[in-house]
Amino acid sequence: MGVDIGGSNLRLALADRHGTIIGRWRTSTNETSSPEQVLQQIAQGVHDLLRKASLPRTALSAIAAGVPGVTDAERGVVIVTSYLKGWSHVSLQQLLESAFHVPAAIDNDVRLAALGEHWMGAARGIDDFVFLAIGTGIGAGIFANGQLIRGHTFTAGEVGYMYLPGGPLEPPRHGEPGALEQALGGEGIRQQWVKTSNSDPQVSALCATDVFARAACGDHLARGVLDLSAQLLAYAVYNISAVLNSSLFVLGGSIGASLQLIEATEHRLDSYAVPARPNLVISNLGTDAQLVGALRLALTTAQVRTKS
Amino acid sequence: MGVDIGGSNLRLALADRHGTIIGRWRTSTNETSSPEQVLQQIAQGVHDLLRKASLPRTALSAIAAGVPGVTDAERGVVIVTSYLKGWSHVSLQQLLESAFHVPAAIDNDVRLAALGEHWMGAARGIDDFVFLAIGTGIGAGIFANGQLIRGHTFTAGEVGYMYLPGGPLEPPRHGEPGALEQALGGEGIRQQWVKTSNSDPQVSALCATDVFARAACGDHLARGVLDLSAQLLAYAVYNISAVLNSSLFVLGGSIGASLQLIEATEHRLDSYAVPARPNLVISNLGTDAQLVGALRLALTTAQVRTKS
Repeated sequence: MGVDIGGSNLRLALADRHGTIIGRWRTSTNETSSPEQVLQQIAQGVHDLLRKASLPRTALSAIAAGVPGVTDAERGVVIVTSYLKGWSHVSLQQLLESAFHVPAAIDNDVRLAALGEHWMGAARGIDDFVFLAIGTGIGAGIFANGQLIRGHTFTAGEVGYMYLPGGPLEPPRHGEPGALEQALGGEGIRQQWVKTSNSDPQVSALCATDVFARAACGDHLARGVLDLSAQLLAYAVYNISAVLNSSLFVLGGSIGASLQLIEATEHRLDSYAVPARPNLVISNLGTDAQLVGALRLALTTAQVRTKS
Repeated sequence: MGVDIGGSNLRLALADRHGTIIGRWRTSTNETSSPEQVLQQIAQGVHDLLRKASLPRTALSAIAAGVPGVTDAERGVVIVTSYLKGWSHVSLQQLLESAFHVPAAIDNDVRLAALGEHWMGAARGIDDFVFLAIGTGIGAGIFANGQLIRGHTFTAGEVGYMYLPGGPLEPPRHGEPGALEQALGGEGIRQQWVKTSNSDPQVSALCATDVFARAACGDHLARGVLDLSAQLLAYAVYNISAVLNSSLFVLGGSIGASLQLIEATEHRLDSYAVPARPNLVISNLGTDAQLVGALRLALTTAQVRTKS
C-alpha cells in the first residue's frame, strides 16, 4: 500500500508485488488534520481498497507513506511539516505498524517522487538526477550514486532556500518560504504578476500557470514574469548541477510542469553548457510520482523486513 | 604510495599499511609537463623513497594519484585539466600500473582531499560533508551517505561555477574560470583589491591573504574586499547546504584557510540558520589533505585488488 499525505489531499494506491496499481482511493485533509485523524482516514482507505479488490487483510504485506515535511526516514519520524500544523516529531512509521500489523516506512514526499521517477518514470536507470518540484513550495529529491540523498538532518533538497542573482536577499526565517520559493513558488509568481499588471485588478487574479499561458499568447507583461522565472530556474538548475553534476532534472509540480517555463529555461541553459549541461524533462508520472515512490518504498520494505 | 600531481608541484608520500607516512618526496612540474615526464618524475620519487626506507620494490603494494582536473576515477582516465595543458584523455591508471606493476588508481585532487579529511582529518566519522578548496581555483569534494559524489561526467563539486547574488553574471566559457571563482578565487580577490585601492599601485601587488590580513589590521578598503568575499562564500556554503544538508564544511586552499575569511563568513551564516546551519572548520591536514587521500585510495586499491 502506498500513501501520499498532502496538505489538502490524502491519496492511497494498492499495488501487487510488481508495482501494478490495482486500486486507488482519495479523500481530503487540511492544515488542522491531526496524525490520529489522518491515520483513521488511511485505515478507511486501506479497508475500502482491500474490500474492492476482494483481498483479505493478510494480503497486505507492507505500507509506506510520503509526508510533506522534514522526515527522518531511518527512524520513521515526521520531524516537522508546514502543511499539517500540529505535526511535530510524530512517530508515523510506528503508528502505521501498530494500525496495520505490517512493516511500514515513511519518507519526505518529494524524495518519494524522485524514487517513483527512478523506478517507473523519466529517470529510469539514471543514477545521478534531481526531481525538482515547483508548485506552492519548491523542493528537490536527489539521487547520487544511485541512492537518495537525505542529508544529516533530513533537509537535503530544500533548494527553495537558495539565494540567486535577481532573487530576494533577506535572511530566511522559521516558517517562511526561502528566497527562491518566494520568487519562483506559486505565490511568488502571482505576486510578480500583481505588481506587473497593477493597472488591471481583474486579470491579477491569475495563477502562475495562467500567467505563463498568457505569455505564450504574446502578452508582454506576462512574458516579463515568465522570463524572470525562467532566469531564476536556470540559475537554480545550473548551481545544483555545479554541485552534483546530475545528468537529468525531472520537473514536477504545477509550475515545474509548465511547458512555457521549461522552454524558456532550456533556452537560457543553452548558454550555460560549461562544465556540464543537464537535460530537463517534465515528470511523466505527474501527480502520481509520490504515490509510485511510496509503492516502491512499500515493496522494498516488505522485501527487506521479510528477509530479516 | 600516494602521489599528488599539481600544476607546479609533484609530491609523493610512502606509507605503511596503517597509513603512517614513512617518507616524502617532492619536485616541480609546470604547465608544459607531459604525462610521460610526470611519470618519469614519479618513477624517480618511488625509487628514492623505497631506497631511503630500505625497502625492496616488491614491498610496494599499490599506488594512487590525485590530478588537478576532470578525472574518470572508474576507468582511471584524466579527461582534461587546465593546469597541465597537454593532458587530455590520459589513461594514467594504466600508465602507473605498467610502470610499477602494482594496482593503481587515480581521482580528482580535491576529491582525494575530501577522502583524506574523512579518513584522518577534520571530517573523521562524518558521512555528509563538503571539503571546499579555495585558492587559485575553487572546487569541492563531496561526501554524501558516506560516499564520494562524482557526478555523471565526473564534474560534481565544480562549485566555482555557481552564480550568486553580487557575483559576475556572464555565461561561463570553456577554459575560463566560473562566476564564483572569478570573484572569490585568488586572482579575483586580488583584482578586487587593485580596483578598490587604485590610488596606491604599490600595495595593489598584495595577494588575497595579504588583503585579508590588512583587513584584520583595520584597513577599511581591505575590509570591504573581505566583506564581499565573505558574503559570496556565505551564499555558496548556504546554497550547497540547501542542496546537500551537509553537517560540515572543511575549508582548504590558501584562501579557504584564512581565519579572517572564515570568521567573517561564520558571522554572516549566523543569520542563515534555516533550514540548517552547517559548521565551518579549516582543514587540519592542510596541503597534506590530497596526499593523505591518495594514500587512502592506494590502501583501498591494494585491498580490493588483492581480494579479487
